[in-house]
Amino acid sequence: MDTFNVTILGCSSATPAFGRNPTSQIVQIAGSYLLLDCGEATQIQLRKYSIKFQRIDHIFISHLHGDHFLGLPGLLSSMHLLGRKEPLHLYAEEGLKNILDTTHHYSRTTLQYPIIFHPLDMNKETEILRESKFTVRTLKMKHSIPCCGFLIEELPRPLRLIKEKIEEYSIPIVQMEAIKGGADFKTNNGKMIANNELTLPAIPARKYAYCADTIYNEEIIPSIENADLLYHEATFTEEMKERAKQTMHCTAKDAATIALKAKARKLIIGHFSARYKDLNPLLEEAKLVFPNTFLAEEGTKFEVDFKIPA
Amino acid sequence: MDTFNVTILGCSSATPAFGRNPTSQIVQIAGSYLLLDCGEATQIQLRKYSIKFQRIDHIFISHLHGDHFLGLPGLLSSMHLLGRKEPLHLYAEEGLKNILDTTHHYSRTTLQYPIIFHPLDMNKETEILRESKFTVRTLKMKHSIPCCGFLIEELPRPLRLIKEKIEEYSIPIVQMEAIKGGADFKTNNGKMIANNELTLPAIPARKYAYCADTIYNEEIIPSIENADLLYHEATFTEEMKERAKQTMHCTAKDAATIALKAKARKLIIGHFSARYKDLNPLLEEAKLVFPNTFLAEEGTKFEVDFKIPA
Repeated sequence: MDTFNVTILGCSSATPAFGRNPTSQIVQIAGSYLLLDCGEATQIQLRKYSIKFQRIDHIFISHLHGDHFLGLPGLLSSMHLLGRKEPLHLYAEEGLKNILDTTHHYSRTTLQYPIIFHPLDMNKETEILRESKFTVRTLKMKHSIPCCGFLIEELPRPLRLIKEKIEEYSIPIVQMEAIKGGADFKTNNGKMIANNELTLPAIPARKYAYCADTIYNEEIIPSIENADLLYHEATFTEEMKERAKQTMHCTAKDAATIALKAKARKLIIGHFSARYKDLNPLLEEAKLVFPNTFLAEEGTKFEVDFKIPA
Repeated sequence: MDTFNVTILGCSSATPAFGRNPTSQIVQIAGSYLLLDCGEATQIQLRKYSIKFQRIDHIFISHLHGDHFLGLPGLLSSMHLLGRKEPLHLYAEEGLKNILDTTHHYSRTTLQYPIIFHPLDMNKETEILRESKFTVRTLKMKHSIPCCGFLIEELPRPLRLIKEKIEEYSIPIVQMEAIKGGADFKTNNGKMIANNELTLPAIPARKYAYCADTIYNEEIIPSIENADLLYHEATFTEEMKERAKQTMHCTAKDAATIALKAKARKLIIGHFSARYKDLNPLLEEAKLVFPNTFLAEEGTKFEVDFKIPA
C-alpha cells in the first residue's frame, strides 16, 4: 500500500528551547518527499534522522516568521553543494523570493538547479499541487501575518474488483478499468450485472491537514473535516489563554477542540512555547477533549492510517 | 587573571556533516562575549553549551558565505523575543545589512534593541573595536569573495612592581602608576632609582588570531606573528591540495606551516570538509609541521595562555 507518513523535524515555536528545534516536518507520500516549513537547522535535523534531502522536490512555507523559514537558505545551499540538478518547487508568500534573492546576491551564490517559485495567495484556499496520486491545497490560517496551512490528500482510489465475480462472469481485462470506475458489466448473453455486485467500495483516500500558526478559528473546520491525521499548533496551555489570543496562537485545548469538531481521527500538537520544559501538561490538556492526541516530538514518524471501509 | 578563551560552536565547512555545525566561535575576554561568525544553528549550539547569548555585545562576520552567517537572523530574533534592549554591534561586509533588512521586512519583524552596524572594508587591516582591556583588528584573508579574519589582542599591561622595593624605598601610592608605566623613582634624599630595579617586566598581552576562509597566504604572517593562540582554517588534507587551491581554502599542512612561520604558540584547525568523517588525518598532517595543534571540536574551550616572562 502507498506510503503516507509525517516525520517531525522541529516542534518549537519562535525560539529553539530544551533541545527542540523550530518548525519543520517531512511528509512522505507515494514516493514524494514534501517539506512543510523549514525552521533553522532543518537540514541538520534531516541528516540526524537519515532523510535523504535531495529527494525533496516540494517545499511549502506556511508564513514568513523566522521560525518557519530560516533554515531554507542553508538547505538550498547544501542541495546545491551536494550536486543537485533537479528543479525544486517552492511555495510561499512572494516576499520569500526577495529574501532568497538578496541572500544569494550578497553571498555570490548561483544555485546549480532551478527553483520554481509558486507565490501563495493566503486569502483563499486553492489547490497548489496535483500529482498522479495526491494533491496539496492551502488552508486559511488566521495569524498576525499572512499564513496558510496545507492539506495533503490522496486522489480517490478505484473500486475494488471481487475476484470471484471476475471468474464467475469471465470479465475480460479490457473492461476491468471501467468497472473499477463504477460501470456495470454486460455478459456475453446480454445480461446486465450491476456494478455493486462486482465490486467492493474503494479504500478511502487519506488526508493529512497541517494547521500552522493560527488563532482558534472554527472557519477552518469544513476544509479539514474527517482528516485521518491533523497537525494543529498548540503553543500554550489554557493558563496562558490571553497570551495565546494576543499572539494569535492556540492552546492545547483549542487544538483538541478543532480536532473534535472536525471529526479528525488523530491529532498531533506542536509549536510549543519555550516556556514549557515538560510538554506533558499540553498533552494532558488536549487529551481531555480529544483522547487520540500525540506530541509532535522530533524524530517521531506518524503514519497516516487508512480508514478501512466496512 | 583576566579571562581569555575561545569556545568552538561549529567547525564544519560549507555544509553541516557528521553532527558538525557550520563555523562559529565565542571568545570570552575580560568580561566581554564576542561571537566570531554565526553559521546556521549557532543559537542552538550556544544553548547546548550553556553560553548566555544575551551577553554577546559584538558579532563579527568574516564573509558572506552562508556557512558563516546564516545563523544570524535566528539569533537576532531570539535575542529580541527574550527581551533584549541593549545595543548589539555587528561587524560585517555591508551587504549583510541588506540581507537582514530584507528578512526583517518580510517577516514583519522590528527588533526591540538597536543594531549598530559596522561595515567592514576587507581591503585593509584596521582596528574595529577598542575596549578598556582589548582591541579587535581585521586580518586580510584571500578567499573567493571578500573575507577577513580577526585579531583579538589584550592592551599592554603595566610593569609589575616588586613588593620588597616598594617597602625598601617607601614608595608612596600616588607614584606607583607612573613607575608601572616605566618612570624612575626619586627618593626623599634625592637619589634616583632606575625603573628596572623597581619592576619586573609586564605580563605580555595575549593575542588570538582567527584566520577564516583563505587560500595559503604568507602575507598574513606579520599580522599574526607570535599569536598565543591561532585558529586557521584547514578544509582539506594534502591529498586534496588542488581542490583546496581551486576553492581558495587551505590544507592542514598549510595551516600548520602558517602557524610555524608566524611563531604561533598553539594552533586550532577547523572548517573541515564534509568529506572527512574522521578528522584525525587532518590533525596528524598538521602535527607533523606544528606539533601543538588541536582540532576545533565543538564544545571545546581553548584558553589563551600567558607567555610568562622570564
